[in-house]
Amino acid sequence: MAKESSIAPRYLTGDKAGLQEFLAKFDVFLFDCDGVLWSGDHLFPGTVETLELLRNNGKQVVFVTNNSTKSRADYRKKLEGLGIPSTVEEIFSSSYSSSIYISRILQLPENKRKVYVIGETGIEQELRSENVPFIGGTDPAYRRDVTPDDYKKIATGDESIIDPEVGVVLVGLDFHMNYLKMALAYHYIRRGAVFLATNIDSTLPSSGSLFPGAGSMSAPLIMMLNKEPIALGKPSQAMMDSIEGKFKFDRSRACMVGDRANTDIRFGLEGKLGGTLGVLTGVSSKEDFVSGDVRPHAYLDKLSDLLDSE
Amino acid sequence: MAKESSIAPRYLTGDKAGLQEFLAKFDVFLFDCDGVLWSGDHLFPGTVETLELLRNNGKQVVFVTNNSTKSRADYRKKLEGLGIPSTVEEIFSSSYSSSIYISRILQLPENKRKVYVIGETGIEQELRSENVPFIGGTDPAYRRDVTPDDYKKIATGDESIIDPEVGVVLVGLDFHMNYLKMALAYHYIRRGAVFLATNIDSTLPSSGSLFPGAGSMSAPLIMMLNKEPIALGKPSQAMMDSIEGKFKFDRSRACMVGDRANTDIRFGLEGKLGGTLGVLTGVSSKEDFVSGDVRPHAYLDKLSDLLDSE
Repeated sequence: MAKESSIAPRYLTGDKAGLQEFLAKFDVFLFDCDGVLWSGDHLFPGTVETLELLRNNGKQVVFVTNNSTKSRADYRKKLEGLGIPSTVEEIFSSSYSSSIYISRILQLPENKRKVYVIGETGIEQELRSENVPFIGGTDPAYRRDVTPDDYKKIATGDESIIDPEVGVVLVGLDFHMNYLKMALAYHYIRRGAVFLATNIDSTLPSSGSLFPGAGSMSAPLIMMLNKEPIALGKPSQAMMDSIEGKFKFDRSRACMVGDRANTDIRFGLEGKLGGTLGVLTGVSSKEDFVSGDVRPHAYLDKLSDLLDSE
Repeated sequence: MAKESSIAPRYLTGDKAGLQEFLAKFDVFLFDCDGVLWSGDHLFPGTVETLELLRNNGKQVVFVTNNSTKSRADYRKKLEGLGIPSTVEEIFSSSYSSSIYISRILQLPENKRKVYVIGETGIEQELRSENVPFIGGTDPAYRRDVTPDDYKKIATGDESIIDPEVGVVLVGLDFHMNYLKMALAYHYIRRGAVFLATNIDSTLPSSGSLFPGAGSMSAPLIMMLNKEPIALGKPSQAMMDSIEGKFKFDRSRACMVGDRANTDIRFGLEGKLGGTLGVLTGVSSKEDFVSGDVRPHAYLDKLSDLLDSE
């Protein structure tokens, strides 16, 4: 754990001088989105103005999301729908981070470059944008019951169902998960494919409650294989590395803003960013930030309290 | 671990006197099936004759299987198809064991007696035989994609989709597992339902390879809830208790026969049976039996070596 996490975080709400001093330390702000900018479909008041303030002061803004079902373009539309101006370049999703990792970091043998995807269209779009060949995903051929014939063919590696060029299994949130997809992912990994996960959040917040998340798609494979995937979303530093690879920023001049101590704040601390800022509009409580194991450098009641720096 | 497991197991193949002495100690033989009596669809030579020998010598034979997709009646047909005579009464499946546990051991409040089932027809048949009301299972209404409407209704506990009488979630192997079923199981358990699993074998042997097993259906729920289910199959002693409840046998005069040290042999040892007998026609090796953590009292190259006692 970074050294800074052991000291008490500074409470900045209403502290104009403290806010000014804090903001002056950073050129780049990485934002977790749900629980910070909005909750579900509800935009927090002041979000747009706060982002505007930062941009007007020359700060680079980056939206960092573990949502793997959307591409960056999809996510930009979501932001737009909520009234938040943004560009695709400002967005980092776990689907994008995974594609970058596969295309630029993994050294795959020539004949093992195909990705077997468990997930939705966001992953497919990002793989296409990096020219990574893939199978599975939203292909309707995989949205069916398993047949007795499948068992034999999968077990023997019959090329009508097992593609010998698959060298990576990438598991994200798939609303169409089924037995066949799970069996195929398992067999590809047993045959040597690299086991990647866009992210391993077990749950997905929706409608004010929780539903199965991307981690729940990896869980059966982890149990069957007794092996963890390489996870590309927060708090994995593979995601921080790709963000840095793209923006070439100075980590000491960057601040991660989030509502979850254990993912967002940890992500910033382990990435050795100059700052981490917690907000109390999401999952973690004041108690978590002040006395928990993972503490931000500073925290606010809500993001728009930054407006009081003016 | 039972004391006996720390001493070296006796190798009985070809040892006529040893075999006679061993057999004389027991009145009841509990058999694991796949890997002991057959492998996949291949019946081992001598299986029928060995079972006949035991029965002719007045031994009670019990077939113990973690297969939750089949009822006892289905399983008897499977045995018959392989040429093994049996009666439904001789069969103990994890679907049956689960039904017994729910109907006779769990004390459910009057208005919480319904079971939400993830699984196939075997579980449904056994629940019906114990007059346990259930929903889910093979009902085609649950074999569909999740809709935006579902999230809201599930989150708010709308009774058009969340049955307030559900007090148990029973998870077995379901070849039609999907996102909706997983989300419902999660929400029922969060609302207080008891989390049961027919068994937690992560894999299912088939076609000479492995495929997702019942444990792989529980894995996402375990991850989301950070909670383990009560498992009713081997090596859970809940299964041994129901077998004993039915046959009223003297444990010191019973022997568990199996190919897997970690499930079958453990099941017998933890159940304090008089004997455990390993066979080398399945998963565990001679090395496992002789020097592993869980050792049977005796072992054989193959089950039909028992015929040499004659």
